[in-house]
Amino acid sequence: MSTAWTSRYAQRTKNIKSSAIRELLRITQNPEIISFAGGLPAPEVFPTERFREACIKVLENQARLALQYGATEGYEPLREMIARHTARYGVKAKPENVLITSGSQQALDLIGKLLINSGDRVLVEAPTYLGALQAFNVYGAEYVCVPSDNDGLRTNQLEASLRLGPKFMYVLPNFQNPGGTTLAEGRRHELVLLAERYGIPIIEDDPYGQLRYEGEHLTPLIVLDRQNLRSDDGYSKGNVIYLSTFSKTLAPGLRLGWMVGPPDVITKLVQLKQGADLHTSTFVQMVAYEVARDNFLDEHIKLIRRVYGERRDVMLKALEENFPPEVTWTRPQGGLFLWVTLPEGMDCHRLFEAALKENVAFVVGDSFYAGNGYAEEGRRHFRLNFSNAQPEQIREGIRRLSVAIKSQLAGWQPEPVVR
Amino acid sequence: MSTAWTSRYAQRTKNIKSSAIRELLRITQNPEIISFAGGLPAPEVFPTERFREACIKVLENQARLALQYGATEGYEPLREMIARHTARYGVKAKPENVLITSGSQQALDLIGKLLINSGDRVLVEAPTYLGALQAFNVYGAEYVCVPSDNDGLRTNQLEASLRLGPKFMYVLPNFQNPGGTTLAEGRRHELVLLAERYGIPIIEDDPYGQLRYEGEHLTPLIVLDRQNLRSDDGYSKGNVIYLSTFSKTLAPGLRLGWMVGPPDVITKLVQLKQGADLHTSTFVQMVAYEVARDNFLDEHIKLIRRVYGERRDVMLKALEENFPPEVTWTRPQGGLFLWVTLPEGMDCHRLFEAALKENVAFVVGDSFYAGNGYAEEGRRHFRLNFSNAQPEQIREGIRRLSVAIKSQLAGWQPEPVVR
Repeated sequence: MSTAWTSRYAQRTKNIKSSAIRELLRITQNPEIISFAGGLPAPEVFPTERFREACIKVLENQARLALQYGATEGYEPLREMIARHTARYGVKAKPENVLITSGSQQALDLIGKLLINSGDRVLVEAPTYLGALQAFNVYGAEYVCVPSDNDGLRTNQLEASLRLGPKFMYVLPNFQNPGGTTLAEGRRHELVLLAERYGIPIIEDDPYGQLRYEGEHLTPLIVLDRQNLRSDDGYSKGNVIYLSTFSKTLAPGLRLGWMVGPPDVITKLVQLKQGADLHTSTFVQMVAYEVARDNFLDEHIKLIRRVYGERRDVMLKALEENFPPEVTWTRPQGGLFLWVTLPEGMDCHRLFEAALKENVAFVVGDSFYAGNGYAEEGRRHFRLNFSNAQPEQIREGIRRLSVAIKSQLAGWQPEPVVR
Repeated sequence: MSTAWTSRYAQRTKNIKSSAIRELLRITQNPEIISFAGGLPAPEVFPTERFREACIKVLENQARLALQYGATEGYEPLREMIARHTARYGVKAKPENVLITSGSQQALDLIGKLLINSGDRVLVEAPTYLGALQAFNVYGAEYVCVPSDNDGLRTNQLEASLRLGPKFMYVLPNFQNPGGTTLAEGRRHELVLLAERYGIPIIEDDPYGQLRYEGEHLTPLIVLDRQNLRSDDGYSKGNVIYLSTFSKTLAPGLRLGWMVGPPDVITKLVQLKQGADLHTSTFVQMVAYEVARDNFLDEHIKLIRRVYGERRDVMLKALEENFPPEVTWTRPQGGLFLWVTLPEGMDCHRLFEAALKENVAFVVGDSFYAGNGYAEEGRRHFRLNFSNAQPEQIREGIRRLSVAIKSQLAGWQPEPVVR
């Protein structure tokens, strides 16, 4: 008798499939294609020389520590640095509030492991980050979706969803992936208060928060939550776990993220991380610490804002000049993405095929919706990334894309209006 | 209403606790203590200069690739290198048979995710690697334990356990953790044939295989399995997934391991890894590739064998000179550990307390047994690591430990023999 592995796969594997984006990366490796598909930073801004210096310093002075096993919680000076940065925007975090993760994606996986029993509901925005859906799906999550508009999650529709008793809610308040939208100040207060009233924890995912190109920084949910608690206990409890990452500010190739939360939750997450990968690379943590320290990170982020801000402007201008009036898009104040809406009846999958013929790519909209109720809505959208391609490529790519759109529009007839 | 996180934890978290070893690392950070507890490589043999050169080379020539997002499967030249190394011992692996993981621990977590439904049985050795139990516990594994002796898992007791229908079996054939024992050649054949007959997949964990200090290299289970298949299909199927790591040969601080298996299983594991951490650090993979290439790794392993072989000899000699005759231990041909057996009635936990007073530490035996049937057996053993401490520390540590043992022996009376 020979073994068929597939017959032995666990139930949970039925919920998983390869992410649309990861698969797309293969297609878009063709150098002829201008890709707006990935969420890739601009490689031109990687601080390569600073990395070189940091590697040499770590290996000359602390190699035995850097190459050895380390603590699951993370490299202590890095935890302290993150706690200090967190304190800057109003959360008095200490190192014991911080867990270093192997990218934000691992934080999402650990959240799923910690909180989701098969069949549990998770409240998400519609649309939302597909990597989070991928992480939660494997634990058997079901979803409650709350729609968004240009001011982010529509909090006036939140209460009905909270009454359905989700295990937690997952939100991206700043320059949302894929929408590019930002949760408005008033809605932040409303969301935190409603979450507290219904006893629903919040996972606040903030990979792009520091990449703001205009307007004022808005208060994170974790800060509003702690203000509500009026707690002077040095951060022992709270209703929010906050996630962020070095992927968009230093380099995604490090796979380095972090979680901030109450110490008892962090302790439980540490136990889960032990079983998952023992700890995140000591060497990478120490190199990132050396790169970021002495205000280098803050200075470097200013450069990124300048470069990405320009690319956003170039893309917005190219869209205005090239796209037909039936098509609309969001105008993000930061981050990496904007979100395009096609006229009713037009299909982003057919457009994708047409775009590939023009050597330009994006991510189809339906990848970003949880559950089945959004198939039609999803097919009317797609996501564009503006951080990775250079300005001249952005202009040319949007021109190509507009050719593809117009070819689709030519064949497209608006539904006859019944008068 | 305020949220208590603990009330929201998923069922599976009830099965997890912090590993005894990770907790121990705290205690043993006291520099006065000589620790034989961890499984730490000797930091003196880390190839620091080679790492420095590799970092500089990668950052000078390929920084944009190294710091960017990468493929979930792993860095292609590294997969190719691992496939070539695997081919050396008789498995014609191709890159598509290889998945790079964030340390071997992640491989164990992905195996658990892929195969274990809550309540499924997993066949393990008694004792076995506690990190594997930690990884599998979170998916609700139950265990079928097969005892070991000096020749490894007792295959004459295997068939009864296979009849219980375990989902898979997990074995460490070389210099087992914690036993230090090696699965004998004849037993390897028997194990592979029985697994095939009962249709039970094998997870072969081989972190130490290259660290052999005497005797001949024995054929891996994955090779025997492929010989049985008599398959000339270029490796499209098989009953074994093989795990290994750079943690014991280059540096554990990298968190870099790999899995070798049939491509369809690797593809499914890639999907699971996408959700778990997107991919392992591109930078770390490229640095490890540059360090290992041009036969450096093979040469470096010769150095490790010499250093660790000497330390093993020093520890064995010190045990013979210092330990009372009631205490016995294994004589490993390689790896990092040996396994001590105390006389019946003596308790490794009480001994641990006495040892700490003498400023020496080890890992208590019962951490390494799955299930509840081995509590008494577990308390008669402990694990000693001989790779991390230097020879003079090993001699002093074993002397201290013998003082602790004799203090326990003094109070210990053998059970009266009924004639």
